[in-house]
Amino acid sequence: MLLKEFEIIANYFHRAPIKALLGGGDDCAVWQITKGMSLAVSSDMLVEGRHFLSTTPAFGLGHKALAVNLSDLAACGARPAAFTLALSLPRIDHAFLEGFSKGLFAIADAYQCELIGGDTTHGPLNICITVLGEVDPSCVIKRSGAQVGDDLYVSGHLGDARLCLDIFRGKATAPGEAFMRLRQALEQPTPRVELGLALRNVASSAIDLSDGLLGDLQHVLRASHVGATLFVDQVPVSPFLSQQPLNIQRTCALVGGDDYELLFTAPKAQAARVVQLAHNTQTCITHIGVIEAHPGLRLVDTAGRQMTDSFQHFDHFS
Amino acid sequence: MLLKEFEIIANYFHRAPIKALLGGGDDCAVWQITKGMSLAVSSDMLVEGRHFLSTTPAFGLGHKALAVNLSDLAACGARPAAFTLALSLPRIDHAFLEGFSKGLFAIADAYQCELIGGDTTHGPLNICITVLGEVDPSCVIKRSGAQVGDDLYVSGHLGDARLCLDIFRGKATAPGEAFMRLRQALEQPTPRVELGLALRNVASSAIDLSDGLLGDLQHVLRASHVGATLFVDQVPVSPFLSQQPLNIQRTCALVGGDDYELLFTAPKAQAARVVQLAHNTQTCITHIGVIEAHPGLRLVDTAGRQMTDSFQHFDHFS
Repeated sequence: MLLKEFEIIANYFHRAPIKALLGGGDDCAVWQITKGMSLAVSSDMLVEGRHFLSTTPAFGLGHKALAVNLSDLAACGARPAAFTLALSLPRIDHAFLEGFSKGLFAIADAYQCELIGGDTTHGPLNICITVLGEVDPSCVIKRSGAQVGDDLYVSGHLGDARLCLDIFRGKATAPGEAFMRLRQALEQPTPRVELGLALRNVASSAIDLSDGLLGDLQHVLRASHVGATLFVDQVPVSPFLSQQPLNIQRTCALVGGDDYELLFTAPKAQAARVVQLAHNTQTCITHIGVIEAHPGLRLVDTAGRQMTDSFQHFDHFS
Repeated sequence: MLLKEFEIIANYFHRAPIKALLGGGDDCAVWQITKGMSLAVSSDMLVEGRHFLSTTPAFGLGHKALAVNLSDLAACGARPAAFTLALSLPRIDHAFLEGFSKGLFAIADAYQCELIGGDTTHGPLNICITVLGEVDPSCVIKRSGAQVGDDLYVSGHLGDARLCLDIFRGKATAPGEAFMRLRQALEQPTPRVELGLALRNVASSAIDLSDGLLGDLQHVLRASHVGATLFVDQVPVSPFLSQQPLNIQRTCALVGGDDYELLFTAPKAQAARVVQLAHNTQTCITHIGVIEAHPGLRLVDTAGRQMTDSFQHFDHFS
């Protein structure tokens, strides 16, 4: 039997939290420091060949390594504060280090997130960032807060990162300008930090989409002990992806992964506020489903037909 | 030119600290959270073949991965609080995960340091731990605090880890019982957490010995803009190492690395308190030198003869 990532954690590393308000399982751990202030903590490790291609430009890699961690903070409604970087390098490559550090500091500065320490060593290329964010303990957005009757929303559009990966793998093609946009989505995703902050006291639950919509949605449903209906044809895709055959659109948008958009739920009574904060944060937000009492996930197309979920979501050990 | 670890950091990742009280360069970054409370943060990445042998038992590896990070907290006088673990594994090996997690939690429990989150992924074996500790901002022990006239001390005894490594490499031998003790030093070092806490308001500077006494001492001297005389024959070694030829003793104890003892300085007026806290924390502490105004490091033997420093210290990129 091949143990998967979540089983490894459950079998070997799960314990009841003591100081932590949220332990492993949510996007961030949340650790209460003082009465009004908690620290949201997230670690992500990027391995060459697994999380990025050896051809990924160094600038983009520096950007993405921090972006995926900031995205975890966003999903909890935390404000970025500081991060550490541990870097294992197979050799000292000045061009790589120059590009990587520029990409890293560009996004760090954009979110006022300070590099406060770390480690460099010799070994296979591996980037491990731990990010620390500040959050009021009473405002932490959790995976487990979805309620029956809530609406399900997603930010931005999904699937471009996966389509770009398919192009790199020779399974798809795109003309130059479209390809540049797809590549931007894969290599330099935008963490939805402002949106995450705006969703405090509005969203009932949130998760960032790293492993694919269907898989990540199921984490929310399980943690919240609810089910959902997902309106598959309402899942937003980019203009270029929308011109692709339907099976490619669906594969990319539903199970693609690496989107780093926020999937969240909010009570129906908050619908007007969701529209308002989409406007305020200049973020496209789409209503894509509803939370229901009946467990499990039901996929429904435009014609109202229920689809079989034959999609496998990404797992780091599959 | 081969760039070394510290040059990589200086060239590509160094910036003036903003929120951080201490940035890269000290054992920990220290980040002030509230008026009376700072967070000490340290990340260490362990790579197979570089920081541990592929034959290292999993229990010891779990222990050591956290121990080296706790040792960084100790050097700053911080109290362990929480940590994250990012783990890249080449395959799912139940025996390894069982042993590793047991070793990790054994030391985590001993120091009441809670695992609050992390990441697991597929890739070459790599262990990255970020540890968070609490410290009063006014009590942080820095590398840069050594003053002319201070005494130089070290905890425990040095060199056993290096001698054990030499045995694994076939360059030395030891009988069974002695070998077990050397192996304990290499694979399951004891972080000097209690000593670090006791040294607050006593030590003027401190560093943990990971890269070898001479190299780490020079970090303190440079950061503090001072020099030192080191009484080479007073550097404490274990009974077994003391029976080895003098050149082996000196190589192991002066440049061996992986000791995880604390090297610290204290004003002469604190000498009695140092003796007292050695007693209180049941730690052997040895006076091994003095801090002087003249820059550089002078090695002096029992006969008072000055020795040439022909020792190279460990660097992760050498």
